[in-house]
Amino acid sequence: MDFTFEVITDEEYQRQRALYEPLTEAVRRLIYASLNTGVDPDTVAEARERIEAVTAMLEAEQRTQVPLLHEDTGRPLVMTNPAVGLRNAIAPPMEVQHDDGRCWAEFTLGPAYEGPPGLVHGGVCALVLDHLLGEAASAGLTQPKFTGTISLRYGRGTPLGPLRAEAYIDRVEGAKTFARGFIADADGPTVEAEGVFIQPAWARAG
Amino acid sequence: MDFTFEVITDEEYQRQRALYEPLTEAVRRLIYASLNTGVDPDTVAEARERIEAVTAMLEAEQRTQVPLLHEDTGRPLVMTNPAVGLRNAIAPPMEVQHDDGRCWAEFTLGPAYEGPPGLVHGGVCALVLDHLLGEAASAGLTQPKFTGTISLRYGRGTPLGPLRAEAYIDRVEGAKTFARGFIADADGPTVEAEGVFIQPAWARAG
Repeated sequence: MDFTFEVITDEEYQRQRALYEPLTEAVRRLIYASLNTGVDPDTVAEARERIEAVTAMLEAEQRTQVPLLHEDTGRPLVMTNPAVGLRNAIAPPMEVQHDDGRCWAEFTLGPAYEGPPGLVHGGVCALVLDHLLGEAASAGLTQPKFTGTISLRYGRGTPLGPLRAEAYIDRVEGAKTFARGFIADADGPTVEAEGVFIQPAWARAG
Repeated sequence: MDFTFEVITDEEYQRQRALYEPLTEAVRRLIYASLNTGVDPDTVAEARERIEAVTAMLEAEQRTQVPLLHEDTGRPLVMTNPAVGLRNAIAPPMEVQHDDGRCWAEFTLGPAYEGPPGLVHGGVCALVLDHLLGEAASAGLTQPKFTGTISLRYGRGTPLGPLRAEAYIDRVEGAKTFARGFIADADGPTVEAEGVFIQPAWARAG
């Protein structure tokens, strides 16, 4: 596995963000519009053809991305990550903040993330929490750590809409880092998680 | 919470599938093309404008969907579900098969689902397994069941590419159904899961 990074300046990061974030946001709105569209079959077919034409434009040049490291923060920029990547339209727009061993994100989940009527899919809660606990355990992804185990307790349904998630390191035992976290709506936590994240053997020396 | 269903015939289901599945697949390919495009900034801007125009076409008529029940199988058709919905481009194309209390799916996860280099994001594995254990516990979503707890054990990284996931009911104790499952590649299981799924109080009478 290759963990080579390319260090980029904040200026270059901001340039890429300004270029790609509006594209990702446009794709995201298209996902949401497709989900419940009720237009007639001819319009559906025309939409599909137009989407295929745009896909061909974007496929004309594809780059295998080298993992990027932000020069100022020392943190990897996981641009294509399915939980937080600003180039991945699957990811809810979730920007993780870090402070003093804790990390958190405020974000909104709409109908594309729905499981039971009006509620977030339990597996989407698991995706959000696995990612956030992993960020906490790895000090913002600056240390290679892999999920060993994760357990989630669903106290009640998580309503679609504005949410907050938090995670922090509970304790460290050798190569194992124990992290905890939760998702909450305005009335408090809905899902709680604890996970064990493991430093791979190749990263333990020194 | 409203669990009213509209029963549809197989013919109507096949009509909707033929209409919407190619649209979803086109949106999915657009997500993948956006992820790693290296086209120049003017082309990115033009792509974004064209995507916004298609979104407007599809937004012209939006329908709040009534949950559908397939007349022949008696199973809900969760068309917009983020794990399996055939109208949701976030979902990997994952078609769940049911037989005698077990369910399984064969599917392929590409770079849009990547966490560590070359490997599936741990949270995406959690999304897949939460969904599949829930399907097993609820007899293919025919009984209302909510995730109570789920625990995942990551034995090794799950490589991007073709995968298989399975789930089954381990035992039932009153309102609690205990389900187990795993994700596997060609070399065997990578992630194992167990979960407790709870029948809500309002569904217990009778």
